[in-house]
Amino acid sequence: MAAGVHVLPVEIRFGDCDPAGIVYFPRFFDFFHQTMETWFPAHLGFPYAEFVRERKLGFPAVHTEADFARPCRFGETVEVRQRVLALGRSSITFGYAIHGLSDDADLRATGKSVCVVMNLDERSPEHGRAVAMPEELRARIEAFGVSPS
Amino acid sequence: MAAGVHVLPVEIRFGDCDPAGIVYFPRFFDFFHQTMETWFPAHLGFPYAEFVRERKLGFPAVHTEADFARPCRFGETVEVRQRVLALGRSSITFGYAIHGLSDDADLRATGKSVCVVMNLDERSPEHGRAVAMPEELRARIEAFGVSPS
Amino acid sequence: MAAGVHVLPVEIRFGDCDPAGIVYFPRFFDFFHQTMETWFPAHLGFPYAEFVRERKLGFPAVHTEADFARPCRFGETVEVRQRVLALGRSSITFGYAIHGLSDDADLRATGKSVCVVMNLDERSPEHGRAVAMPEELRARIEAFGVSPS
Amino acid sequence: MAAGVHVLPVEIRFGDCDPAGIVYFPRFFDFFHQTMETWFPAHLGFPYAEFVRERKLGFPAVHTEADFARPCRFGETVEVRQRVLALGRSSITFGYAIHGLSDDADLRATGKSVCVVMNLDERSPEHGRAVAMPEELRARIEAFGVSPS
Repeated sequence: MAAGVHVLPVEIRFGDCDPAGIVYFPRFFDFFHQTMETWFPAHLGFPYAEFVRERKLGFPAVHTEADFARPCRFGETVEVRQRVLALGRSSITFGYAIHGLSDDADLRATGKSVCVVMNLDERSPEHGRAVAMPEELRARIEAFGVSPS
Repeated sequence: MAAGVHVLPVEIRFGDCDPAGIVYFPRFFDFFHQTMETWFPAHLGFPYAEFVRERKLGFPAVHTEADFARPCRFGETVEVRQRVLALGRSSITFGYAIHGLSDDADLRATGKSVCVVMNLDERSPEHGRAVAMPEELRARIEAFGVSPS
Repeated sequence: MAAGVHVLPVEIRFGDCDPAGIVYFPRFFDFFHQTMETWFPAHLGFPYAEFVRERKLGFPAVHTEADFARPCRFGETVEVRQRVLALGRSSITFGYAIHGLSDDADLRATGKSVCVVMNLDERSPEHGRAVAMPEELRARIEAFGVSPS
Repeated sequence: MAAGVHVLPVEIRFGDCDPAGIVYFPRFFDFFHQTMETWFPAHLGFPYAEFVRERKLGFPAVHTEADFARPCRFGETVEVRQRVLALGRSSITFGYAIHGLSDDADLRATGKSVCVVMNLDERSPEHGRAVAMPEELRARIEAFGVSPS
């Protein structure tokens, strides 16, 4: 897998699927978020839970979108591929693509989330506000790779 | 409706249902919790969110169970009926029954949750521990009605 | 409320919220879908479950997006307002806005879903394909009102 | 790990957790079901999706319960251990225990589900009814191991 791509395999469970036997579409946004969570320990050097609980920062989405090409069915394993499309002063844009397992041609969905670096410290005057990306974190994200497509 | 019963009508949504077209069973425990949440403003005089956020208390379950008699299908409206089965020093036991709308004979599921009064105040030495039920709250619950069946 | 707007009040439950105490963002897409489900009986004359189960049709999303302006917190009631932005031969575009209760200025999120009319009949040669919007349904949607903003 | 125990590691995600930062309790029943789903290919020789879609059988719960000893927190990895406690003519009873990773003493929750073998074939006169466990499946389950504790 090329540098700058983080992959999370996802087994589609019974409870992910709707009466049509395919993934209920809001679940895809949970898959995207799970992929982002696992990107932290895999590529940034610390778990997302530490980011939230100890550093009191989070990456809430201010915009998110998805395009659905083909359904994902109960019992399949798919992979969610995440790239970083853009890195701003206090924002980060993730791109997502869901593929059938290891098959580049078998595209199921694509997505994008624009997130801000949010101060989650209830005792801080900046609580609930977007703050600048910490420099150490920015350096690690740049090392992972940022590319617009 | 008799005293001592709190009722929440629930419309079964597409997203509540699994590939068999019926409610995915973990959702029933969410329906039970939603019923408990709406019981607070309806019968105890203040919202559950105030209980959690301002009084820093919660009712986490230490035991929960359900028996499923007949499925609930996408598109139905059912009602969840909640009673208080027991009230201890620092615990409360809820009984639940899910019926087809206003039809006592059409029983779908029953359940029970034993909850403790939990201190949620992170600055308190009793954080995360079961504490005595506040007397004012106990009085309101007794006024609602406690009965073992 | 103006013609052409369907509103679903949503009480934000404990289980809708994440460790930051606000709605976990994939839930908003479930709120959008629930609003669409309740629009059927309120404005089109039959329930969404009948559309799916008896007419063997569905409205799966091919594109969906949301912008988040301000969080929705545990214990709040918000309203989801749905409009029909466009009506194609076999597609329909919904616009969504989530507001604090009855307060037009208190905008929390906006969204959009482009859905296709999908044949869900497993015995049909057109199963899983987009089909033309049935004329009777088109007439009812036009009576509800279609407007690009 | 002893014969007769199937284990699913579960990473506790942000979206599994409630405003108290711990797993929202209905999620545990989804963890139990996911564990049962992965037991099929690991120990019975075919995926649960094949059981449901091709054999037109399912294991819906008629009873389920859980006891919660200690919370599971966002960012942890736990393991769900499943045993088969009993095997009837048309029913199966699963026992569950959730532990901190690889630490037998760190018990978080236990659970039990009584499931029936259900005919899911809409064209069958037995649709929606409990049916006898297929002999080949029974043999594989007995080979996995059945023990009351």
